[in-house]
Amino acid sequence: MKGTVFHGPHDVRVERVDDPEIKTPTDALVRITRAGICGSDLHYYHGAFPIEPGFVLGHEGVGVIEEVGSGVDRLKKGQRVVVSGLVACGRCFFCRRGQPSQCFESGSAVFGYGASAAGKLGWLGGEQSEAVRVPMADYTCYPLPDAIDDDCAVFLADILPTGYFGAINGNIHPGDTVAIFGCGPVGLCAVMSAKLFGPSEVIAVDSIPYRLDLARKLGAFAVDTETAQQTILDRTEGRGADVTIEAVGNDTALTSAIMAARGGGTVSVIGVFATQSFNFPIGYAFMRDLTFKIGLANINAHIPDLSRLIEKGTLDPRPLISHIMPLTDAPKAYEIFNAKKDNAMKVLLKP
Amino acid sequence: MKGTVFHGPHDVRVERVDDPEIKTPTDALVRITRAGICGSDLHYYHGAFPIEPGFVLGHEGVGVIEEVGSGVDRLKKGQRVVVSGLVACGRCFFCRRGQPSQCFESGSAVFGYGASAAGKLGWLGGEQSEAVRVPMADYTCYPLPDAIDDDCAVFLADILPTGYFGAINGNIHPGDTVAIFGCGPVGLCAVMSAKLFGPSEVIAVDSIPYRLDLARKLGAFAVDTETAQQTILDRTEGRGADVTIEAVGNDTALTSAIMAARGGGTVSVIGVFATQSFNFPIGYAFMRDLTFKIGLANINAHIPDLSRLIEKGTLDPRPLISHIMPLTDAPKAYEIFNAKKDNAMKVLLKP
Amino acid sequence: MKGTVFHGPHDVRVERVDDPEIKTPTDALVRITRAGICGSDLHYYHGAFPIEPGFVLGHEGVGVIEEVGSGVDRLKKGQRVVVSGLVACGRCFFCRRGQPSQCFESGSAVFGYGASAAGKLGWLGGEQSEAVRVPMADYTCYPLPDAIDDDCAVFLADILPTGYFGAINGNIHPGDTVAIFGCGPVGLCAVMSAKLFGPSEVIAVDSIPYRLDLARKLGAFAVDTETAQQTILDRTEGRGADVTIEAVGNDTALTSAIMAARGGGTVSVIGVFATQSFNFPIGYAFMRDLTFKIGLANINAHIPDLSRLIEKGTLDPRPLISHIMPLTDAPKAYEIFNAKKDNAMKVLLKP
Amino acid sequence: MKGTVFHGPHDVRVERVDDPEIKTPTDALVRITRAGICGSDLHYYHGAFPIEPGFVLGHEGVGVIEEVGSGVDRLKKGQRVVVSGLVACGRCFFCRRGQPSQCFESGSAVFGYGASAAGKLGWLGGEQSEAVRVPMADYTCYPLPDAIDDDCAVFLADILPTGYFGAINGNIHPGDTVAIFGCGPVGLCAVMSAKLFGPSEVIAVDSIPYRLDLARKLGAFAVDTETAQQTILDRTEGRGADVTIEAVGNDTALTSAIMAARGGGTVSVIGVFATQSFNFPIGYAFMRDLTFKIGLANINAHIPDLSRLIEKGTLDPRPLISHIMPLTDAPKAYEIFNAKKDNAMKVLLKP
Repeated sequence: MKGTVFHGPHDVRVERVDDPEIKTPTDALVRITRAGICGSDLHYYHGAFPIEPGFVLGHEGVGVIEEVGSGVDRLKKGQRVVVSGLVACGRCFFCRRGQPSQCFESGSAVFGYGASAAGKLGWLGGEQSEAVRVPMADYTCYPLPDAIDDDCAVFLADILPTGYFGAINGNIHPGDTVAIFGCGPVGLCAVMSAKLFGPSEVIAVDSIPYRLDLARKLGAFAVDTETAQQTILDRTEGRGADVTIEAVGNDTALTSAIMAARGGGTVSVIGVFATQSFNFPIGYAFMRDLTFKIGLANINAHIPDLSRLIEKGTLDPRPLISHIMPLTDAPKAYEIFNAKKDNAMKVLLKP
Repeated sequence: MKGTVFHGPHDVRVERVDDPEIKTPTDALVRITRAGICGSDLHYYHGAFPIEPGFVLGHEGVGVIEEVGSGVDRLKKGQRVVVSGLVACGRCFFCRRGQPSQCFESGSAVFGYGASAAGKLGWLGGEQSEAVRVPMADYTCYPLPDAIDDDCAVFLADILPTGYFGAINGNIHPGDTVAIFGCGPVGLCAVMSAKLFGPSEVIAVDSIPYRLDLARKLGAFAVDTETAQQTILDRTEGRGADVTIEAVGNDTALTSAIMAARGGGTVSVIGVFATQSFNFPIGYAFMRDLTFKIGLANINAHIPDLSRLIEKGTLDPRPLISHIMPLTDAPKAYEIFNAKKDNAMKVLLKP
Repeated sequence: MKGTVFHGPHDVRVERVDDPEIKTPTDALVRITRAGICGSDLHYYHGAFPIEPGFVLGHEGVGVIEEVGSGVDRLKKGQRVVVSGLVACGRCFFCRRGQPSQCFESGSAVFGYGASAAGKLGWLGGEQSEAVRVPMADYTCYPLPDAIDDDCAVFLADILPTGYFGAINGNIHPGDTVAIFGCGPVGLCAVMSAKLFGPSEVIAVDSIPYRLDLARKLGAFAVDTETAQQTILDRTEGRGADVTIEAVGNDTALTSAIMAARGGGTVSVIGVFATQSFNFPIGYAFMRDLTFKIGLANINAHIPDLSRLIEKGTLDPRPLISHIMPLTDAPKAYEIFNAKKDNAMKVLLKP
Repeated sequence: MKGTVFHGPHDVRVERVDDPEIKTPTDALVRITRAGICGSDLHYYHGAFPIEPGFVLGHEGVGVIEEVGSGVDRLKKGQRVVVSGLVACGRCFFCRRGQPSQCFESGSAVFGYGASAAGKLGWLGGEQSEAVRVPMADYTCYPLPDAIDDDCAVFLADILPTGYFGAINGNIHPGDTVAIFGCGPVGLCAVMSAKLFGPSEVIAVDSIPYRLDLARKLGAFAVDTETAQQTILDRTEGRGADVTIEAVGNDTALTSAIMAARGGGTVSVIGVFATQSFNFPIGYAFMRDLTFKIGLANINAHIPDLSRLIEKGTLDPRPLISHIMPLTDAPKAYEIFNAKKDNAMKVLLKP
């Protein structure tokens, strides 16, 4: 089959790779019909995260079940499914608590992130390809109702659950002000998700005009990075936002998110950092009584709720799609997304 | 001053009554600029609840501070305020827990409900009048920003916090299905409030077409009482609603709300019952693992959050207003509201 | 094998019955080493609940895995396990939310309660016997560490999770006063469980001196039914208990539990009612802002936490054991437990 | 009157200072009968935190109301009270949410911490003295029942609420394992507080044997710092603690607390750091899905619950007291506490 293969920084190629096969009884094979490129894929693309050359990229996929192993009992051939970017068993200590990102059985494996990020599973091929082997398929694949089309469903594989996780972690109460730093695809998913918790206002912060425009269309009060701190104070009687969400993944944005939170507020991080350490203002945080939350989203646990919200029309992430391109154009798709060309937002691939 | 005085069932008259006066240091006097007639006022109007003839009715009022006692330190003459229908001290065991409806100091006093419902306060005049004395004013009056006009603000005095309380008690999670029985003003406030908690769908139930139409405009899936049970099952894969809210105040509606809740679900009651006892299906509830919540709303605790939501444009209850009439027309206003004439929904009075 | 067979009211006999067999791939066979008689078994014993003559009773069992079906992957022959009284799949909508009592796959089946109470599973033999077939064994059997002996473990099958469920439903906060009506085995499990949530005091109510004595030994303030209401008011500055738990299963106790709760408090029911309907004081509850919770405990969801608490020595239910008798004495054991002879509390059977 | 005056690092003296006086209507004067020396006082003693020479130290005081201002309505002369270390108004946005440490009116003022730490209040004398002026007295002083003696009550002024705050922030569930780093007075208050939430085990970590002994007496599993990480893993099936609490206030302890928390766990900081910045392992935390909480305790909000717990005998902090000395010996008391002489733990002063 064809897959989007990492060769080195800024060098991905669509090539023939081995067809995936069922390896254990709980595997399923999924023929991909739509895949996404994620902001975190760019860390690999930039060489900031290590990955073995030859690895197929991609952890956002929607498709059709081609085959199931003998131990799969909730799925059958022909079903349309979204594949969670995260593999999880559904039954360990962590999965039972709704924390599949810590799944003991899978070792928190993520598709298309290289051998080490595939946890105990080793070599877990990516989904920017024609097909993928899905381990622990019963808790990793989610059947889709007809009301959710492929373009919509691909958001369920990672970035919508990630935005939602950021909002859940924010512990938003009705009437709260939520400030979201970063209006890329994940940040905008956080905007949509935050609105599910009844805030009086979501303030979206970015420095790129087309991203702020889109935030505004999604119902946020959009503000440029430069004036964000002052605007947030002005709109909260000088207190700061009840909840801030960092959706960029760099120190500047995180420091801003900490400084923009009110005393007793929450800072929720969903941006993926390429660095290992952050200079945390602990004296300031002590005086401000802050809650700081950070983690890989518990995708599998969130998919059922988000799926119902899309199915009933309460959520619709499709306005975030800027490009749908053939799988064979993946190199160009990476280039556009990386350079934020043509008002690039969510870029999808169609095998 | 003029006030709407109860004389007997179906007999209210606008008459001259004594002007209110400051009696204790924590009182304020409020000149009323807008008042509402509440569904629960009809229990008095029907003679179903006892009240002393001569009592001025009304517990929904907005106005301007005319005078404050020496112990009032958060309000001043000339401020526009909404008066919570419920008087509370803000500092007792209950108020500190956000349960002013159980306020120890005020004895859960409600304006315009007769001497016994005024708790320890005795004779607490109603707000369908030109002015009212407000005890414990610092925690009973809430200053209004300019962005909230009088028509909007009157909803904050009772029915919007009541709908919100019903939604809070429902413990709604994103993705839930919420079924609301009763599309009168309180039921529709519950529809608006429930949507703050991110349900995938709010199903509104009533048997009067114009009320269902309005529920639909507010974003609910509206359904006739006759077909409600089946529709709720059909739209929840046979489980029943995660949360049901009773907003009528009679046994039939409450039984329906119990039967329509899924196993492990919550039934939240905000309808005001004129009866004292209800035949609770305890064997059924045991098998279904039900939570049942009922109470007078904690209005004062909810006003600040709801106020911010209105101010920032997230909530707008004004579509519920069907009539705004001069205070002197109060008898006619009661008649219209009681008979559901002219598509009556929320009926306001303007002194 | 031998089992305790229901023949009619007050007539149970230990007889030879068919040996259980694996019927579906997810079944396990468990050889019983310890079984309990539950207060709810007495409803069958009294003829108050219908059950087919010939049914083997008992839903509290501990034993050793004899055989597992081909679809069981978390258990193996020879493991010591406690069998949850409730069969559940672990993966449906309800089980994923920690509500196995509503399990869609098992239909909330309970062992030894007759064909209708066995839900979709039909004829689910009891555990007051030498062996039992356990459907959906992976989520119904729980391996036991050595630190938990059989006498201790049998409490995990039902009554300790039930007491714990009652405490969870009470939503107890540190510093609260909790009043528990009924000091039978379930009530005392609720006493132990309530103490896990940091109440300032647990007030235990009963009219039988030896039961009050035991409550006192477990750390409760014990009080006779006659003086309970006044004592509760006196010890809560006149407010009533923050949380009351009904652990009897009759109208008098439930009415007392409702009346003893403070405004804004919670009434949690774990007693099993033989009646279908209860005269709920709805007018009173409205003025008091009450939460009322009732259900069959979510046993399977609670076993892991309770198991850790016993293993580490924080919980020890063994002081509740009054009798350990051979399985062949089951008729006499029922008689003793039913008549509260010899200070009967928890009565165990040893096959 | 006499007070313990800061003159410079390691130089405190008991001297005559001005008698406190009522300055605003909401002030009260309290004659101190017992005061504590807090671990955070040592930051001043060491010169690590800046404070004006001449400032009277101390923020833990119990005493008797001598006089109240005209605006104080919940206190009267002669009442025994504990004074919260933190001054708060009880009515602002933050106090209403149970976050008095962020009180807008007081500016989070703390007694005896120097002019800048006294927030908007400026010069707020300490309580290691014969008397103190208490601003916003209605929400800063708490009347004591007879059942709570002075030695017990002084813990309510700061360190018991601080330990409790650490436990609340940990979001401990029954069955959890909690690891507490640091067995000084605050750490041991966290041990006692954590046990209110039903953990299966509290693991207490320190390197000083007498402190570990005391932790053990309070019911913790005590372990030396050297072997803590491995012990925590061993006792949690390799996962790490569900909740870790940092009660030291240095980078090493905090790093250990982060590393000892399980995936999806919570790290709660109550140690007071003398440094401003901490090298936070953000990449690690992202993979582990961590919650990190830090703040000055919301003392005033916690006092009522803790007071009930002490009154009913559930909590008793007195085993922590190692020394009770006359106020005039304050210099020696500081020396003993600072040097951990004579198994020093909580050191109290008696004016």
